[in-house]
Amino acid sequence: MRGLTFHGEQDVRVEEVPDAALEKPTDAVVRMTMAGICGSDLHILNAGTAFGFEPGTRLGHEFIGTVEEVGPEVTGLRPGDRVLASCSILDGTCPMCHEHLHSSCDSWSLFGWAPRTWQHDGLVQGGQSEYVRVPLAATTLTTMPEALSGMDRQRTMLPLVDVMSTGWHGLRSAGMKAGANVVVIGDGAVGLCAVHGARALDANAVICLGHHEDRLAVAGELGASGVVTSRDTDEIREQVMEMTGGEGAHVVVDSISGKASMAAAHATVRAGGAIACLGMDHFMQNVPEVNWFDQFLRNITITGGLVPGPAYMPELLDAVIAGRLDPAPVLTTELPLEDAADGYRRMQSREEGVIKVCLTPA
Amino acid sequence: MRGLTFHGEQDVRVEEVPDAALEKPTDAVVRMTMAGICGSDLHILNAGTAFGFEPGTRLGHEFIGTVEEVGPEVTGLRPGDRVLASCSILDGTCPMCHEHLHSSCDSWSLFGWAPRTWQHDGLVQGGQSEYVRVPLAATTLTTMPEALSGMDRQRTMLPLVDVMSTGWHGLRSAGMKAGANVVVIGDGAVGLCAVHGARALDANAVICLGHHEDRLAVAGELGASGVVTSRDTDEIREQVMEMTGGEGAHVVVDSISGKASMAAAHATVRAGGAIACLGMDHFMQNVPEVNWFDQFLRNITITGGLVPGPAYMPELLDAVIAGRLDPAPVLTTELPLEDAADGYRRMQSREEGVIKVCLTPA
Repeated sequence: MRGLTFHGEQDVRVEEVPDAALEKPTDAVVRMTMAGICGSDLHILNAGTAFGFEPGTRLGHEFIGTVEEVGPEVTGLRPGDRVLASCSILDGTCPMCHEHLHSSCDSWSLFGWAPRTWQHDGLVQGGQSEYVRVPLAATTLTTMPEALSGMDRQRTMLPLVDVMSTGWHGLRSAGMKAGANVVVIGDGAVGLCAVHGARALDANAVICLGHHEDRLAVAGELGASGVVTSRDTDEIREQVMEMTGGEGAHVVVDSISGKASMAAAHATVRAGGAIACLGMDHFMQNVPEVNWFDQFLRNITITGGLVPGPAYMPELLDAVIAGRLDPAPVLTTELPLEDAADGYRRMQSREEGVIKVCLTPA
Repeated sequence: MRGLTFHGEQDVRVEEVPDAALEKPTDAVVRMTMAGICGSDLHILNAGTAFGFEPGTRLGHEFIGTVEEVGPEVTGLRPGDRVLASCSILDGTCPMCHEHLHSSCDSWSLFGWAPRTWQHDGLVQGGQSEYVRVPLAATTLTTMPEALSGMDRQRTMLPLVDVMSTGWHGLRSAGMKAGANVVVIGDGAVGLCAVHGARALDANAVICLGHHEDRLAVAGELGASGVVTSRDTDEIREQVMEMTGGEGAHVVVDSISGKASMAAAHATVRAGGAIACLGMDHFMQNVPEVNWFDQFLRNITITGGLVPGPAYMPELLDAVIAGRLDPAPVLTTELPLEDAADGYRRMQSREEGVIKVCLTPA
């Protein structure tokens, strides 16, 4: 079968890889029908060797598809079922799963992302492939509701796997309430999904900070009430204050989590407010600095992290069915799997009009 | 009248100061019956000039007393009433007061702490004096319940003003639930009060990290199930894990908020847990470093800050009346106001057996 593999910095290729197959009785094999390239996949493209990635590793942790085959111990799934994969493997039975922090599951591994040393039980290959082996399939996969299982709904469904649930996690972990002012830092897919989620959760002002006209236009389409393009912290603060009647943001979702974004977060968050850090820029040596004086005096909470996707899947699916949520616009660019390396290149170069690339088998 | 004044680093004196008097119709004058010396007062002793303190400023933000005189617009208070002061002035009517974040009140000033530039409406002198002018008295003062207004209950009541409510704020802001494992970093008065609060809120394990045998004995008396004296992060982690059945702390209350304490917090907090930063060591150039990799992967929340005391006063008073709370043991040392400078010196030198000094008029 064909799959996208890592071979070193700036070198990913679609090539023949070993067929995905059942290895354990709790496995399933899923035929990928749509897979995403994530901003974090670009971190692998740029620095995968330093993270411990080995040449030949298949990448991709965002995919949806159709169950092809299930092991004898997989309950609740049959070949032909349309499914969303969680980004990471989960057993559904450990204390963390019971507390809905699936991203810290005892059986945690991340599809196609984590170097071998991070993986719980053998390397879990990525989803940017024709087929994917899914460990602990009964809990790692979510069956799509009938109404959303059509191929025409794929662009709505794929973002739920990661970017939409991540944006939602930012809002929920920050305790966002209806009527809140929300500032979203970053106009990438996660930022835009946070904008969209804030609107769906009945925010008052939803302000997106970014530097790309095309992406900020999508922010408007997804529910932003205002955008800020300045890179100057004082100017950012001034504009956000103006857009919020002098109040500032109850919730800041920082989809970048680097030095400048954290400064903007402190400058725009309201006393008693929360900053949800969802980005991974600190992996890339752009380390945020907490303004401790501000944190202390104004009781600022810093929260967020790696999304426990399944914690939010029921409410996300409900919101989609109810028509309050449709993150499809973040998937600007659909390519066949065979052109995946080109997709990485186009996302990496921030090509105008390309926010997020999705891949289809054909 | 007599009052404790700042004159420069390592120089505080009790001397004749102008009498406290009504200046506005919403003021009251309170006769101090007990005042505390706070750990943060030692920051003034060590670096007050850098913070903008002017010579002659009267210090002290923790006091209880008896209403001496009220302005014509003060409602609900009469001379003779026994009262607790909030550390900071509050109007009770602004949006932040309505949201119980009184420490960010529009009318905020801190008794005897803040340099003039921080103060909302003229300098508010401190409570380590015979009498204290209390602005916005109707909201800044809380009348003691009859059952707790006796002079024999003063040592129980005074800590509620700051250290007990601060420790409680750490637990509440971190979302502490009954059955949680709580690690408290620091064996000063705030740390010990956090230990006591965790026990009152039905924690499972309550582990106090500190380096003073006398203080850790008080931690035991106030409800700690274990203590850790190591300064080595790995050892701290190992011991906390052993005391919590390998689980770690749902809540870490960091009463120091410096580099080593934050490292210990990350090492002992459970995935999905929260670190409440209550200390001010970052004011003194001991700046905590967030482990962002850990924050992200394990969804660690960093919260806490300056206590909004009145937010917790009803539940604290209830807990005292019910017999579940009595922080009196943190007040190890009672001195007459005249000896206040000696009290500063004894706290500063961490004299054995001296955790917190309280002052009485006589």
